[in-house]
Amino acid sequence: MSSMPDYAMKPGDTVGILGGGQLGRMLALAAARLGLNVHVFCPDPASPAFDVAAKTIVAAYEDEAALAAFAQTADVITYEFENVPARTAEVLAALRPVRPGPYALNVSQDRLTEKTFLAGAGIPVAPFRAVDSTADLDEALAEFGGRGVLKTRRFGYDGKGQLMIRSRADADGAYERLGSVPAILEGLISFEREVSVIVARGLDGMARAYDVAENRHEHHILKTSTVPAAIGGRTAAEARQIAETIAEKLGYVGVMGVEMFLLREAGAERLLVNEIAPRVHNSGHWTEDACLVSQFEQHIRAIAGWPLGSAERHFDVEMENLIGFDADRWHEILADPGARLHLYGKAETRPGRKMGHVNRVRPIKP
Amino acid sequence: MSSMPDYAMKPGDTVGILGGGQLGRMLALAAARLGLNVHVFCPDPASPAFDVAAKTIVAAYEDEAALAAFAQTADVITYEFENVPARTAEVLAALRPVRPGPYALNVSQDRLTEKTFLAGAGIPVAPFRAVDSTADLDEALAEFGGRGVLKTRRFGYDGKGQLMIRSRADADGAYERLGSVPAILEGLISFEREVSVIVARGLDGMARAYDVAENRHEHHILKTSTVPAAIGGRTAAEARQIAETIAEKLGYVGVMGVEMFLLREAGAERLLVNEIAPRVHNSGHWTEDACLVSQFEQHIRAIAGWPLGSAERHFDVEMENLIGFDADRWHEILADPGARLHLYGKAETRPGRKMGHVNRVRPIKP
Repeated sequence: MSSMPDYAMKPGDTVGILGGGQLGRMLALAAARLGLNVHVFCPDPASPAFDVAAKTIVAAYEDEAALAAFAQTADVITYEFENVPARTAEVLAALRPVRPGPYALNVSQDRLTEKTFLAGAGIPVAPFRAVDSTADLDEALAEFGGRGVLKTRRFGYDGKGQLMIRSRADADGAYERLGSVPAILEGLISFEREVSVIVARGLDGMARAYDVAENRHEHHILKTSTVPAAIGGRTAAEARQIAETIAEKLGYVGVMGVEMFLLREAGAERLLVNEIAPRVHNSGHWTEDACLVSQFEQHIRAIAGWPLGSAERHFDVEMENLIGFDADRWHEILADPGARLHLYGKAETRPGRKMGHVNRVRPIKP
Repeated sequence: MSSMPDYAMKPGDTVGILGGGQLGRMLALAAARLGLNVHVFCPDPASPAFDVAAKTIVAAYEDEAALAAFAQTADVITYEFENVPARTAEVLAALRPVRPGPYALNVSQDRLTEKTFLAGAGIPVAPFRAVDSTADLDEALAEFGGRGVLKTRRFGYDGKGQLMIRSRADADGAYERLGSVPAILEGLISFEREVSVIVARGLDGMARAYDVAENRHEHHILKTSTVPAAIGGRTAAEARQIAETIAEKLGYVGVMGVEMFLLREAGAERLLVNEIAPRVHNSGHWTEDACLVSQFEQHIRAIAGWPLGSAERHFDVEMENLIGFDADRWHEILADPGARLHLYGKAETRPGRKMGHVNRVRPIKP
């Protein structure tokens, strides 16, 4: 007969979720199914997660009184986005367990810290250099053969805060065009595919990775994730191992997305880690319909101090993001017997806005 | 390219759900996943469905002003229980589509009407007689060999409102013990198993049945549903056909549970329909984890005027109800890799109260 450690949550306890977007909504749905109460904190009164949460607070992330009130009602606090302000995390962590912890937030909020952490942990990454001035940029470009991707250290997502440099003309004024903010230059990688691994790690230190997804982007936004990825079995095992190692070295608790590039060099496959996201991840939405335990339930189990569920995959699957007016195809998707539709309940459709996704499953090819 | 009929709901529309128990809660979760808003009406302020609904009203089912306010906000109204008062249904139906419709409610609220409807539709049922007095009871018993089950016509569930009569002693005063209310006597059936079929029928008239479940009760409350049922393939096909026929003859829209007895007579299997429930059904909870489209999503699709999803089953499965303190085993269930836990978020555990369920899946035996 199993028993739960004292630190574990109990059904009826409250999960506080910082952020009310679609990830917060899907976390809330998973928590409710496990008999937990959900309290969502978000500055936006039209947050999709509010519609499925027992309690909600609309306040700024800087509103310390509201943060304290939120923390009082929650047994454990988690978040749906990595750009939680450091002070917000600090205020909350003084009152309640915040999972994943501040270290993971800290590492992943800053590309330089992240890359330095990864390299230090023996994880393969593209070459990188800190860039805090035009002079730094020129120096780094000289080192990387005149080419690279210049990225802000903080607040980049979906291709924002990045400049591709392939020539002297690209380089001229690039640091200023990026806003003259702390940045890094990454060496240009000629990769064959982009893949990602969703990994969970429990409070007991047990880590468990899902199968590798192959990701295709359109306009810098994830369009599809296909599982299994078209990569060798040994490479897939290595990708999962890399993700588990990162989770362990971070002392991580919860679900994390690890994005990687697959390089082919003289026929051999090689992986480089591009970035990590300390949260449930868009490229893991396929787990909702192809696994018994989704990334959302897995995250809740981890932060609750509960045992992780099985990450076994029962279908081959393609997840397609419904972006902007893609979501107008909802009726066609409903008529497709292998498709499962997920819509986020966002009132307003805007180009580039993630409105929902669809998982299309088929039997696993032997 | 498919298109939706004009009467169909659109994402962002609101489903009104009458009743805030676990069935309402699971309907609300399914609707949210499809991008619908949910509004729950229930007299009990501690309703489990309230925690996952965008809007809620606490009011009596007789409060016509509250019913009207509720109907104003909803595009389509449905319910989680069959004992919706006739006047409540009438008030709502005057303002908005109520699905399933009043006819199905009417038929299923009264055992005499129900049995008469079924027999008239050519569906096999146990012999039955109306009983409105002790004299009626004696007459019916004489006809059925002195044995039978005396049941109130209305408001019976989980074995309540029933008396077993096997002897003269049982019969004496039985009509009074049942409350001297309109009743029926059903002939005693010697059955081998209890099975059920969950069937959905869309606004377009398309009916689709899930696989047959075999049900085991404890203390008159469903304890487990096992799929597939241990019955012959031809009998299983017949059970599904019976359920589809009932849905068609009722002009039904939504998901319905059809409970049946399996009799074995000289080695041959024969089915009798015991009762129908015009709603999602406890014996269909296995569909959440063994099918891509659960009974809850299927019900929402049907009442929304959307195409039904596939009812295909991808696992063999046993659903176990967690009744009363059964739910204290939640941590053992979480540690079982083939199990998926569902808890209803009820604050108070009471003996006999349905607190949650668990689906245990395994690969389909070829």
